[in-house]
Amino acid sequence: MDEEKEKEELELRQIIDASDSRRLAEYIDGREAIDFAQTVSLIDDDDILRHLLMLMDDDELAALMEESEDKMRLRIARLLNDHRLLVAFEYMQKDDIVDMLGDFPIGRRKKVINLMKADDQRVINKLLDYPEDSAGGIMTTEYIALKYNLTILDSLRKIQEIGPKTEVIETIYVIDDRRRLIGWVDLRDLLSAPKETVLKNIMEENPITVYPEIDQEETARIVRKYDLMSLPVVSRSNQILGIITVDDIIDVIVDEYDEDMLQMAGVSGEESLDTTLKESVRFRLPWLMVNLATAFLASFTVKIFQGTIEQVVALSAIMTIVSGMGGNAGSQTMSILVRQLAQGDLSFKQVIKPFRKEIMLSLIDGGSTGLVTAVIVSAVYGNIYLGIITLVAMIGNMLVSGIFGFLVPLVLKKCKADPAVASSIFVTTATDVLGFFIFLGLANVFLPFLIK
Amino acid sequence: MDEEKEKEELELRQIIDASDSRRLAEYIDGREAIDFAQTVSLIDDDDILRHLLMLMDDDELAALMEESEDKMRLRIARLLNDHRLLVAFEYMQKDDIVDMLGDFPIGRRKKVINLMKADDQRVINKLLDYPEDSAGGIMTTEYIALKYNLTILDSLRKIQEIGPKTEVIETIYVIDDRRRLIGWVDLRDLLSAPKETVLKNIMEENPITVYPEIDQEETARIVRKYDLMSLPVVSRSNQILGIITVDDIIDVIVDEYDEDMLQMAGVSGEESLDTTLKESVRFRLPWLMVNLATAFLASFTVKIFQGTIEQVVALSAIMTIVSGMGGNAGSQTMSILVRQLAQGDLSFKQVIKPFRKEIMLSLIDGGSTGLVTAVIVSAVYGNIYLGIITLVAMIGNMLVSGIFGFLVPLVLKKCKADPAVASSIFVTTATDVLGFFIFLGLANVFLPFLIK
Repeated sequence: MDEEKEKEELELRQIIDASDSRRLAEYIDGREAIDFAQTVSLIDDDDILRHLLMLMDDDELAALMEESEDKMRLRIARLLNDHRLLVAFEYMQKDDIVDMLGDFPIGRRKKVINLMKADDQRVINKLLDYPEDSAGGIMTTEYIALKYNLTILDSLRKIQEIGPKTEVIETIYVIDDRRRLIGWVDLRDLLSAPKETVLKNIMEENPITVYPEIDQEETARIVRKYDLMSLPVVSRSNQILGIITVDDIIDVIVDEYDEDMLQMAGVSGEESLDTTLKESVRFRLPWLMVNLATAFLASFTVKIFQGTIEQVVALSAIMTIVSGMGGNAGSQTMSILVRQLAQGDLSFKQVIKPFRKEIMLSLIDGGSTGLVTAVIVSAVYGNIYLGIITLVAMIGNMLVSGIFGFLVPLVLKKCKADPAVASSIFVTTATDVLGFFIFLGLANVFLPFLIK
Repeated sequence: MDEEKEKEELELRQIIDASDSRRLAEYIDGREAIDFAQTVSLIDDDDILRHLLMLMDDDELAALMEESEDKMRLRIARLLNDHRLLVAFEYMQKDDIVDMLGDFPIGRRKKVINLMKADDQRVINKLLDYPEDSAGGIMTTEYIALKYNLTILDSLRKIQEIGPKTEVIETIYVIDDRRRLIGWVDLRDLLSAPKETVLKNIMEENPITVYPEIDQEETARIVRKYDLMSLPVVSRSNQILGIITVDDIIDVIVDEYDEDMLQMAGVSGEESLDTTLKESVRFRLPWLMVNLATAFLASFTVKIFQGTIEQVVALSAIMTIVSGMGGNAGSQTMSILVRQLAQGDLSFKQVIKPFRKEIMLSLIDGGSTGLVTAVIVSAVYGNIYLGIITLVAMIGNMLVSGIFGFLVPLVLKKCKADPAVASSIFVTTATDVLGFFIFLGLANVFLPFLIK
């Protein structure tokens, strides 16, 4: 796999060295655009990259920019003059252009937009206004919307004409005289309908739509639920503004999941292997500092019982088992709740039965692991009372972990906080602090039995 | 939201009570199939459900089964006799039928298949042979494949005829005389091509394909990378067997992510809020037992230094900070690696620079949090040496967490184990055991400075 990539890169470099634009065209033609873009991303010398861009046709350049990662796009854009950039834009989807322009330095962005045709300027400026992670921010303006009174024959002609420029052809949207979305037609039905019928007669009514300010995550949920190939975005007065296509939705789902997974572990969703040291420190250190505060809370709980530990030093070794196991059980429960909440809110009725189950589960898991621990502790330290205290403390701390692991994500969601981000801090604090407190507190009460 | 659901359910129950099949048809017609299925899933009485099913048309029943969850599908199937089931199957996609049959008790499955037409029997049996999570297991056999020598005019006629029964219409696959896949045509191009041309002349060659035994996760990666609407599945001799559609791919992505997230926290990917107590115990207890073993490892490390702690009991409170912070930093690093590995393997060359960065990051994060801890510890316990030892131990344990958090997922992947499942056990063990060892070991060496 790796070797093949290197071979691809070598071949491309040879073509650039030879300035052979015909061979380059063949090379590009014989590959998927995304594979070519990935090979190009391996070139780290600006002069070589500029040379490559000069050898490429405008449509090839457009495809390269569409398939490149954000950073690479910007690098390519920096190496191109405004004129060449504008010509390449002609071959690109509007939503991709807006994505690129959104990352441009403000000065260049304005300059490039000002050089565009008035029509394009209007569309681009409007799209740039929507937040990047809203339905408006991910929609494309390349779709097919036809008037309700068009005949099938005329519709087919229009589709032949507009089709090649649109992202979706399977669904034709039907609009009234004021561009309000009133229905949609499946291309299958259109192909098999009598040629003289008008669209209004074969269209389905009440299409599922979203407003442009809706969050992209909610948008993804709708597309997934209804198995849509595209989802129209409409204004409050129901005028169609654009459509969201399923390939963009896949990217949204993947991004949101990546974010959730990383945030649950206290890492910014933006961090990856390529993140610079400075950024990584900025992303991770604050989270560690917050955790440090909670670690001190746990530590002071232990300090309260310093006198007890002084008399039975074995407690210091056993207490780490109690708190650690509570933490593990807590993150099990928590992760299930966080996942479930990511798929939509939960009502009181929905959680009451699972919560009762969770309590039972904590008792069973705490009892089983506690029993094993108690037996080993009794044997190693030769004191059965130490074992019994450990058993009771384990059950108690598992209850704490079950209750907090279950309720913390729910409460955070109710408070409009992201459960994936903040849950673990609270759950860990609870299982650590209460775990130490229950175990050492019990030991303190039954101290006479522990001292031989 | 919740209220609306209850209203929907109430209305449906009234219709069932009234045995009004015309009003039921209107009710179903006015709703998305998935929404109707979700309302039906709220009916928990078998007699009421059976009554509802009797009131429904066969095509409505088929849609209901297609949109229902696995468990609900089975319940519906149990309430239907074989004949009714077979009639409803006529309206369903083959891959959905296979999904359902796969969950049937073996006896009923065989009986139902034997009642099918010979053609259907062959297709269904073949599909049932593929593992559920392979490309063959998720593919559908409803697609459009046309011979290469067909004219555009004939092709359009065929598409009008087959189209309504297929899942994808945007991509037409082109086959040779022996059903081997030799290309594909975008419907857009087909619509605008001269009517007398043959498919061969306008088709694109070398379509991206997968073999049926390829894992669904790999399949999802390909669809996502190349932004495909559908992906053909072919045999070794390149005959087309079926296609995978993008809506199924979305489900694959969501399922795999859910699995990864839960497994990282030590929960089975199959667990959800609805899991029974017995299953939850079976899923979670083994993981807790494994963790218990590692907790004992850490505990015994502390036990080794019992003599040291006896002399400076403050150590027992501070050591939890050192091990806890290492655990937090470790899961930060680990989660980034696990995410990255889920997107594909990493070469040695790709990880060497990030690894060096990780080491630097550990030193910085360990130094910062260690310094804060050292100052507080020195002040609280009135001993600056205790602070210095804590600082050094924190830096040391952060190094451990950085190195293990980085390398454990990589090594697991190389050993063909799933990093999402097993990483945290090893990383936690390392940060706990080595965290205690470094801190208490240092304290032991510099004991004279700690005793006032």
